[in-house]
Amino acid sequence: MEAAKNNNNERTSNGSIHGPTNPMVTPLLNDLYQFTMAYAYWKANKHQERAVFDLYFRKNPFGGEYTVFSGLEECIRFIANFKLSEDEIDFVRQSLSPSCEDAFFDYLRGLDCSDVEVYAIPEGTVVFPKIPLLRVEGPVAAVQLLETPFVNLINFASLVSTNAARHRKVAGKSKTLLEFGLRRAQGPDGGISASKYCYIGGFDATSNVAAGKLFGIPLRGTHSHAFVSSYMSLDEITDRSLRRKDGSSTCEDFVSLVQTWLSKIQLLNGVFGETNQSELAAFISYAFAFPDNFLALVDTYDVMRSGIPNFCAVALALGDLGYKAGGIRLDSGDLAYLSCQARKFFCSIEKEFGVPGFGKLIITASNDLNEETLDALNKQGHEVDAFGIGTYLVTCYAQAALGVVFKLVDINNQPRIKLSEDVSKVSIPCKKRSYRLYGKEGYPLVDIMTGEDEPPPKVGERILCRHPFQESKRAYVVPQRVEELLRCYWPGNLDKKLEPLPPLKEIRERCINQLEQMRPDHMRKLNPTPYKVSVSAKLYEFIHFLWLNEAPVGELQ
Amino acid sequence: MEAAKNNNNERTSNGSIHGPTNPMVTPLLNDLYQFTMAYAYWKANKHQERAVFDLYFRKNPFGGEYTVFSGLEECIRFIANFKLSEDEIDFVRQSLSPSCEDAFFDYLRGLDCSDVEVYAIPEGTVVFPKIPLLRVEGPVAAVQLLETPFVNLINFASLVSTNAARHRKVAGKSKTLLEFGLRRAQGPDGGISASKYCYIGGFDATSNVAAGKLFGIPLRGTHSHAFVSSYMSLDEITDRSLRRKDGSSTCEDFVSLVQTWLSKIQLLNGVFGETNQSELAAFISYAFAFPDNFLALVDTYDVMRSGIPNFCAVALALGDLGYKAGGIRLDSGDLAYLSCQARKFFCSIEKEFGVPGFGKLIITASNDLNEETLDALNKQGHEVDAFGIGTYLVTCYAQAALGVVFKLVDINNQPRIKLSEDVSKVSIPCKKRSYRLYGKEGYPLVDIMTGEDEPPPKVGERILCRHPFQESKRAYVVPQRVEELLRCYWPGNLDKKLEPLPPLKEIRERCINQLEQMRPDHMRKLNPTPYKVSVSAKLYEFIHFLWLNEAPVGELQ
Repeated sequence: MEAAKNNNNERTSNGSIHGPTNPMVTPLLNDLYQFTMAYAYWKANKHQERAVFDLYFRKNPFGGEYTVFSGLEECIRFIANFKLSEDEIDFVRQSLSPSCEDAFFDYLRGLDCSDVEVYAIPEGTVVFPKIPLLRVEGPVAAVQLLETPFVNLINFASLVSTNAARHRKVAGKSKTLLEFGLRRAQGPDGGISASKYCYIGGFDATSNVAAGKLFGIPLRGTHSHAFVSSYMSLDEITDRSLRRKDGSSTCEDFVSLVQTWLSKIQLLNGVFGETNQSELAAFISYAFAFPDNFLALVDTYDVMRSGIPNFCAVALALGDLGYKAGGIRLDSGDLAYLSCQARKFFCSIEKEFGVPGFGKLIITASNDLNEETLDALNKQGHEVDAFGIGTYLVTCYAQAALGVVFKLVDINNQPRIKLSEDVSKVSIPCKKRSYRLYGKEGYPLVDIMTGEDEPPPKVGERILCRHPFQESKRAYVVPQRVEELLRCYWPGNLDKKLEPLPPLKEIRERCINQLEQMRPDHMRKLNPTPYKVSVSAKLYEFIHFLWLNEAPVGELQ
Repeated sequence: MEAAKNNNNERTSNGSIHGPTNPMVTPLLNDLYQFTMAYAYWKANKHQERAVFDLYFRKNPFGGEYTVFSGLEECIRFIANFKLSEDEIDFVRQSLSPSCEDAFFDYLRGLDCSDVEVYAIPEGTVVFPKIPLLRVEGPVAAVQLLETPFVNLINFASLVSTNAARHRKVAGKSKTLLEFGLRRAQGPDGGISASKYCYIGGFDATSNVAAGKLFGIPLRGTHSHAFVSSYMSLDEITDRSLRRKDGSSTCEDFVSLVQTWLSKIQLLNGVFGETNQSELAAFISYAFAFPDNFLALVDTYDVMRSGIPNFCAVALALGDLGYKAGGIRLDSGDLAYLSCQARKFFCSIEKEFGVPGFGKLIITASNDLNEETLDALNKQGHEVDAFGIGTYLVTCYAQAALGVVFKLVDINNQPRIKLSEDVSKVSIPCKKRSYRLYGKEGYPLVDIMTGEDEPPPKVGERILCRHPFQESKRAYVVPQRVEELLRCYWPGNLDKKLEPLPPLKEIRERCINQLEQMRPDHMRKLNPTPYKVSVSAKLYEFIHFLWLNEAPVGELQ
């Protein structure tokens, strides 16, 4: 027991829990009824009864057939730090009835999660409805106080990492995906959480500086339309000199160099008429600031008549001084058409002026992108290398919530079931184990739940997998590989080996690998095949025995 | 100037900014490009140029014609505390190019918002598209660093308070509205923000204890299904005694008293067969904990056959001892039907057993409620007194984001316009004032923007209000009352009277009053009439002059 205690302490003190603690996540981040129930349990002297709760969701989001599980590390950090301050206890006292006994608040004062056990599927795993993501065991009052924070921490995390994975799926592996959602996110932490969990789901970088600092996520960003329109004319550029990259000399009039290039380009382009001079001034000014990574937003005035020629003139001038420009961003209009036109233009410059690599300048597109617009762009054909995605990604606009629930499945070694007229809402009782069974081709075939004490499925041995509620749906499976899904992340009083909490990059890699491992028909956008989730024959019998026992017998009147 | 500085300091130190600071809201809660632009402005020695930005949205959410403006106080608190720490400056340095000059980071080190001015519409005001919610003036680099945090803080706040107001509108004034969304919210702060801004929008209470503590919002909560199913039988109740409310004596066997009442009720009910005994045990246990405010969730097994009779038996037994029960919560099934049945049952008990007030017990309903289900319940007829609303409310499921933008409208006293092929995206240039003009019946008639230096509209004097972009849409108005919308919340270097930041309750009252003041046809759910937003004749002319000036002339090819 001491060893386990030490284990817990290690998790809280020696940094084996990575990353910062969200200061908002305290035991008061809770529904009031968790405290009223805690009091009622305590008053009935029932608070120490050992309960088992399953945390799971009922339906995959976004019309898909898979979900990426995220948020675990924050739950474990929460449990490691679970302790009510005097101030918080006072507030709970004010919020409950004045008749509540003082001794309850002494109990709250001493409450921690050292006798709670948490078993979970590793973060970043592809998961499915009904299979417990977490199994939490411990004194019923303590475990109920974990419900709201755990569900809150997992719901949005899993939803947004799934959304990110779906965007990655449609964009394809070769594209760079940038999360640009902070401004439209649901509050400051909605933005920070989105940045973190989009990274897990397969995004490459974020614009969110706070998330970059907190989690080490790569950052990206250039300039906005306001920067462009803050310039009026080239006269605003007072210092026109720029040093060559190798430091060997200085170009005294970089502006003239740009203008010379612009004339050549105009001839090539065959379009006469001036480009927007305030835009040109802004680009030159931005190039002075970032000569080594010149990226420009080219749609403030007119992409093909102004933004692209202006950008190319600056990029070519930078090239003369040994710098290599980065590329452009398109933020409006027909992104497919404009990206192809821009690419064609870059290639013609590469060819005409003999500038190697100019044709491969990076084209980034943004502007209300989502799964559907990415899909449409793919079908139309485009030349975009990187997508900046905001609103639809971070707010999970297509479906703004996941229905994660936390259900009592056993108390005092008595299995409990929650009935409902809606079968999909009936809970699966008992303290359970779950396994993922893999087939010959290496794909996961089915997840199966069994009672805690049943022997595990064995490689090469036939096992009957039953739909938990539909009698006729069942299949024999001979697994080629068996993976137990729940692992111990918080041992309570047990002297158990703890599963490590990996750094964010590893979670992201796990997620990407997991997604690649899935059979493609489960992952497709249109009419995906549901992945099978089952129970053992024994558990099936028991569920239905309990169901009949608990359900009232109707009367036809 | 000193006086103004003091004003700022007062705002930061003497508590005139109410409530706590969100620790996530630091200057790094920003898009990287705000820092790259700051560097580029600085490098071009343009960073101190005086710029004016408007913060506004383009379209009302949820298919409606109004929006509740929220989030202002958090913006003012952000600006009051705006200061980069050494640690943050180091991180910005790492995130920008290594070629960035050191002196820039000295500039960041000294940067605060003492020379920024913020004019805003008071929080809790009903607002409309295109009208600036905030006008922010100051050195261009500093103001750009406010864009992302301001937009983040206002977007979700305004969206969710509007959503709450819409729910209130359909529920009606007499109902109690409870926000129960923490578990499904977009992260911890998504939940806390939702609780705060739903309260502003007209909700009465929240289940979120953290929000209760932070903002003084009333808290509500009873127990969950897990509490009910954690009980197996009446044998679990060991101490069966309950003291009378007046303390005069003790009922030694409260359980028997309940059982006696249950038998009487069963006879009245005409339904034979036992109610669920584990549910009864849970209710009795909960009553022991909260005899003075007994509220029970009655749908764990069967509402009419078990939950209601069990609840009534406990409530009647409590009544014998001088306690008054609170009511029930329904969390599944046909809420209209069940609430009517429950009410009928309560009334028959009041009549049959002569228990005054029993028929008026509070019926609370929850379970995936939203505007549509509330509307449907109203049409069907119901007996619900209080609604607990979660997912759809707090995640703004029907529309998960508002499109607040922040646009440059003037720099160095030069008006700027942002063009777009989509007219709705063209910005309205110039440093402006805005007014709300009221008609004879006291309703707001139209909002009008004018240039900064134009004389304000006068009561009783005819003024031409023009649609900003459609030439033919214009109307003369003779206002009976004129209200200037923008007020000074942060004075910069000016010695201006500061608008107070009212406490949350006042903001909520303002919001409720504002909503009641609107003409009903703007507020209705189906096909509401758009509220008119206009510009003065002079501003109209100027917008179109600038537009023609900036827009490229097309070539038909």
